[in-house]
Amino acid sequence: MAYRVGIAGATGLVGQRLVARLSGHPWFRLTVLGASERSAGRRYGEAARWLLAEPLPAEAADRVVTGCAPSDFAECDVVLSALDAATGRTVEPALAAAGLPVVSNSSALRLDPGVPLVVPEINAGHVDVLAHRPGPGFVVTNPNCSVTGLAMALAPLHRAFGVRRVVVATMQAVSGAGLEGPRAIELLDNVIPYIAGEEEKIEIELAKILGGADERGFAPAPIGVAAHCHRVGTVDGHLEAVSVELERRPSVEEAIEVLSRFTGEIASLALPTAPRAPIVVRREPDRPQPRLDRDAGGGMTVVVGRVRPCPVLTLRLVVLSHNTVRGAAGGAILNAELLAARGLLRSGSTA
Amino acid sequence: MAYRVGIAGATGLVGQRLVARLSGHPWFRLTVLGASERSAGRRYGEAARWLLAEPLPAEAADRVVTGCAPSDFAECDVVLSALDAATGRTVEPALAAAGLPVVSNSSALRLDPGVPLVVPEINAGHVDVLAHRPGPGFVVTNPNCSVTGLAMALAPLHRAFGVRRVVVATMQAVSGAGLEGPRAIELLDNVIPYIAGEEEKIEIELAKILGGADERGFAPAPIGVAAHCHRVGTVDGHLEAVSVELERRPSVEEAIEVLSRFTGEIASLALPTAPRAPIVVRREPDRPQPRLDRDAGGGMTVVVGRVRPCPVLTLRLVVLSHNTVRGAAGGAILNAELLAARGLLRSGSTA
Amino acid sequence: MAYRVGIAGATGLVGQRLVARLSGHPWFRLTVLGASERSAGRRYGEAARWLLAEPLPAEAADRVVTGCAPSDFAECDVVLSALDAATGRTVEPALAAAGLPVVSNSSALRLDPGVPLVVPEINAGHVDVLAHRPGPGFVVTNPNCSVTGLAMALAPLHRAFGVRRVVVATMQAVSGAGLEGPRAIELLDNVIPYIAGEEEKIEIELAKILGGADERGFAPAPIGVAAHCHRVGTVDGHLEAVSVELERRPSVEEAIEVLSRFTGEIASLALPTAPRAPIVVRREPDRPQPRLDRDAGGGMTVVVGRVRPCPVLTLRLVVLSHNTVRGAAGGAILNAELLAARGLLRSGSTA
Amino acid sequence: MAYRVGIAGATGLVGQRLVARLSGHPWFRLTVLGASERSAGRRYGEAARWLLAEPLPAEAADRVVTGCAPSDFAECDVVLSALDAATGRTVEPALAAAGLPVVSNSSALRLDPGVPLVVPEINAGHVDVLAHRPGPGFVVTNPNCSVTGLAMALAPLHRAFGVRRVVVATMQAVSGAGLEGPRAIELLDNVIPYIAGEEEKIEIELAKILGGADERGFAPAPIGVAAHCHRVGTVDGHLEAVSVELERRPSVEEAIEVLSRFTGEIASLALPTAPRAPIVVRREPDRPQPRLDRDAGGGMTVVVGRVRPCPVLTLRLVVLSHNTVRGAAGGAILNAELLAARGLLRSGSTA
Repeated sequence: MAYRVGIAGATGLVGQRLVARLSGHPWFRLTVLGASERSAGRRYGEAARWLLAEPLPAEAADRVVTGCAPSDFAECDVVLSALDAATGRTVEPALAAAGLPVVSNSSALRLDPGVPLVVPEINAGHVDVLAHRPGPGFVVTNPNCSVTGLAMALAPLHRAFGVRRVVVATMQAVSGAGLEGPRAIELLDNVIPYIAGEEEKIEIELAKILGGADERGFAPAPIGVAAHCHRVGTVDGHLEAVSVELERRPSVEEAIEVLSRFTGEIASLALPTAPRAPIVVRREPDRPQPRLDRDAGGGMTVVVGRVRPCPVLTLRLVVLSHNTVRGAAGGAILNAELLAARGLLRSGSTA
Repeated sequence: MAYRVGIAGATGLVGQRLVARLSGHPWFRLTVLGASERSAGRRYGEAARWLLAEPLPAEAADRVVTGCAPSDFAECDVVLSALDAATGRTVEPALAAAGLPVVSNSSALRLDPGVPLVVPEINAGHVDVLAHRPGPGFVVTNPNCSVTGLAMALAPLHRAFGVRRVVVATMQAVSGAGLEGPRAIELLDNVIPYIAGEEEKIEIELAKILGGADERGFAPAPIGVAAHCHRVGTVDGHLEAVSVELERRPSVEEAIEVLSRFTGEIASLALPTAPRAPIVVRREPDRPQPRLDRDAGGGMTVVVGRVRPCPVLTLRLVVLSHNTVRGAAGGAILNAELLAARGLLRSGSTA
Repeated sequence: MAYRVGIAGATGLVGQRLVARLSGHPWFRLTVLGASERSAGRRYGEAARWLLAEPLPAEAADRVVTGCAPSDFAECDVVLSALDAATGRTVEPALAAAGLPVVSNSSALRLDPGVPLVVPEINAGHVDVLAHRPGPGFVVTNPNCSVTGLAMALAPLHRAFGVRRVVVATMQAVSGAGLEGPRAIELLDNVIPYIAGEEEKIEIELAKILGGADERGFAPAPIGVAAHCHRVGTVDGHLEAVSVELERRPSVEEAIEVLSRFTGEIASLALPTAPRAPIVVRREPDRPQPRLDRDAGGGMTVVVGRVRPCPVLTLRLVVLSHNTVRGAAGGAILNAELLAARGLLRSGSTA
Repeated sequence: MAYRVGIAGATGLVGQRLVARLSGHPWFRLTVLGASERSAGRRYGEAARWLLAEPLPAEAADRVVTGCAPSDFAECDVVLSALDAATGRTVEPALAAAGLPVVSNSSALRLDPGVPLVVPEINAGHVDVLAHRPGPGFVVTNPNCSVTGLAMALAPLHRAFGVRRVVVATMQAVSGAGLEGPRAIELLDNVIPYIAGEEEKIEIELAKILGGADERGFAPAPIGVAAHCHRVGTVDGHLEAVSVELERRPSVEEAIEVLSRFTGEIASLALPTAPRAPIVVRREPDRPQPRLDRDAGGGMTVVVGRVRPCPVLTLRLVVLSHNTVRGAAGGAILNAELLAARGLLRSGSTA
């Protein structure tokens, strides 16, 4: 079994992560690398300014980049989109209308009433709404890179104790801004206390993920969220300081146990890139740290630490997740694996 | 008029800031540089590993370092202490017992029931409790470097609207940890979500500063505070993301007006290093930033930005203050100026 | 006396430094702020994305930005150009042709046979060639930001001992690349061993500066130069590791003496921003360092250290200069002061 | 086959790399973790402050740390030493005297006339001098972390064209200074142009490695070397800018070919951690870069770039090697593999 995978937006930073992570994937075979007009027709190795420490896979380097029209992906079983929001808003519906399953990291359609916003361990069931879709194509999205880790840490607390309100301050890595992120002169010896649109995304996307879904659509969880977003001088790994108000006050040990035992909705599916532990809780006083913990579980494990009482709300904790892996490319691939396991992709071609 | 000033703990990073800022001070004349046994007897220029960008004043470089015994400061009118907490706990009471006014940046005695904890613009009146002191010596302290900016931003909001609860996430510069702070390998491409003892200091010191004082002592303000402290890779300038709950909900414009108009209790005293504006409010979406704003008002102005509603508490804002100036050396010198203006120092010698 | 000064390219990083350093200048009065079409007509405070730690002078913030045509500068006595090379190549000759003295930081005309390339302490005499110019307008340039410090350190060695060959490795700050410099993701936890065109500039400009000039033009010094250029994660201050071969081998102490005593050709002119010491030699084993030494002499002093024998050539030394001050804006202003002192500017208007 | 391996100095940064890289090694089985008195008797997971991004192997975490006496390593077939120089100077000879093969990363004995200093691809034959050793124990060393990459890049050029003189400027990562390296406040927004003893090590060790060896001892190559060493704010990866003078001047393409084709003396031995390519030459104008290239070949490949003519000597090039892998732990393990392949270790125990 091998699903033929295309990437829309393959030259950007998330596109590069997709290329790297699809190399050697047991279910997926990279078939099409789509990008903008400017890149189409060139070798991927020339068109992409490769900025990952891991090497550019040789088979991708020599592939010729295409555009992102439905015809470019005609031979694909699924398209992974790493397009920017503006482009995604027109390209992704066009691909879906052409009958293609689209798994998107872009923010374009995340809040669309017909589009599931999925972190498999939390709300894999949201893809059930696709049963009612009009045609064979559809779009499934993963959340903003600052939302994934937060949602993962809050999901087990929400089930066990009921999340009411959250105050979160993020310290986000520069890779989250892609290849066109802040200049070095803006960020050296500095912190930028603002990321356009990010606080709103956290507040809205979190509620959709933690909420319910049925044939009538998605019902956001009634959670109050106040976000403070910052860009700091780290390469990868979004760190978040969280104060959370719960309906029932657990002890610190109860909270740690609930977090540590969390396996999520997909434990039985044996998805290839699902981490053994979706959440790891560290008990040292000074962890998690971006450089030391972002690669836990191959970048797919969310690391939580400093679980302690909150004098204002109920609990305080620190959450770290790898923003371009779990929070972007890895999250999209895990969603694609979920769709394959649930039979929502065209049956894979014979490799 | 020139008060003779001694420094206890002159070789550390805050000690260096004190030396730099006392050079050319209109009221104070640096007379004694006290430090540990290891440094005593050496030229200051050799004993201190100078790490400031501004040059070491020539007159200090050639002065011979003394110890920190009362006899070392016998000729001083006031001693500024930049000692670490453990040393301060024995040295500062000894100096006060010997009749010396001590203005301390150390945390040793900040919570002592007989010791005012003062940010002049906020609670200059707290020094009135010294009227009841047993002898001529006393200790006055300034708060932890992460507290000063927060207290300054909250003080006018507290007076106008009543502060009930605060959630604050700090992103603190490495200079706050002094010469023995984190190693480069710990902080490059990283954030450390923990500073020992810091969160407790914020929660306790803030209440004492914003509280009342009378002959029976200090009455902490009944404010709930939850702090999340982080060390980030900036040289100077503590940035803090604040969510605050107020008794009365102001509009954003009302809050900005209250903050901008704040002059504080010492506006009429014309203290030499008091900034023209204790608080400046920036209206750009992405300010304050440590590198760009920490030197506002010579490092004595607290810069506030991003004042906006909080979906969980009442308001969100970002606060920046220069941690080794306003939050340490500059704050101590301003306290010394306050004491001089209030007649609490020995009458200055004739220079 | 007050010369009316216009700036061409006022919104970039060097333009910002020019604006900051002209504020309060005793001879020069900022009159025109010229920039691109995109900025013209807007308030400078809005058009310029101010990235300096020192505040934007209020009088500049409210000035309306103009274009860079000769008519825009009609009321000016001198124009300081911080244009990029491509724009400078057309704009600067046009301004000169209109009769304006132009003092340029751009690389456009540095190697032009009629244009002096001047570091006042080294080759102020090169401006004498302007006596033979056809009209009242002319262009004088200062060197590339990585050349100024190197030329300054080599000039006294050249006079005393004869420089034959130089191998230099630079570690250049990001401000040298201006507002459009490297992205944070390119430079965090990284060094980029390449700056387009920089090595060639060092090799050619150094020879012109250290060479002679007479009515027939400029005669480059016959010096072999091999440069290795690197961009590192510092904000300001270019550090350079130099191995130099001399015709006569001095002792280390002789070399230090020659460097320390260097006053240069302009010592008698009392130019307002000339540093008291053009070169300071540090004797500590680990200096100069960018963060600690770049502001020496207000950023106008070149700091040299680690003078020691070279096992391959003659001497090794480390050179630091502030790239946007001494190496750009400050260097241009000092050139303008030289021209004023030499009577080469229109007589200053009455302020 | 499994050789039982002990580590002397297991808690430091190089010790941690050894632990990580021995996990799963096909020939070597980690048996003893030796460290200082302070750590002995504690679990390794507690005694070592783990600072690598890769996880601490579980089997090492629970092992009890021993001291570094010969008796502690009695059951070992080989000891890998990551001791500091001062400790190594007494411990390593004592281990060898007790009959143990010692493979050391420490500088203690590198220049000892009876101790080979080995980079296997370059001078594996140097271990032949051990045939004349008095007893079963011996010491083999790998060079300083700033030397390995330089030696590797120069070795093929030396063989093909004859290296006469070298000027090298290093930009070294903080991990090279171990757990007690520079403070963050010393290195943020800064470069330190000095590393104690480093320039001398480069100049002496390089000559020993590139020189000859026979029964009378080691004959250093007659190469003149001038080093300029700098500490920069990178985590891992030493970058070096090299100007080299050759006896015969090759074209750039000839030099690249000689570098690219270099396989070294051990190509036929199939050592488990020998990289497929000891040297990779990049042709992009801006490579190698520490963050992007240090992990080439699992950190064992030296990456060379910017090969171009030198206007002063013969060629310029840029060299990058991973300082704690190829330049330390990985280099030591490769030396141990060489010794095993050459039959110089006790015959491996049956696992």
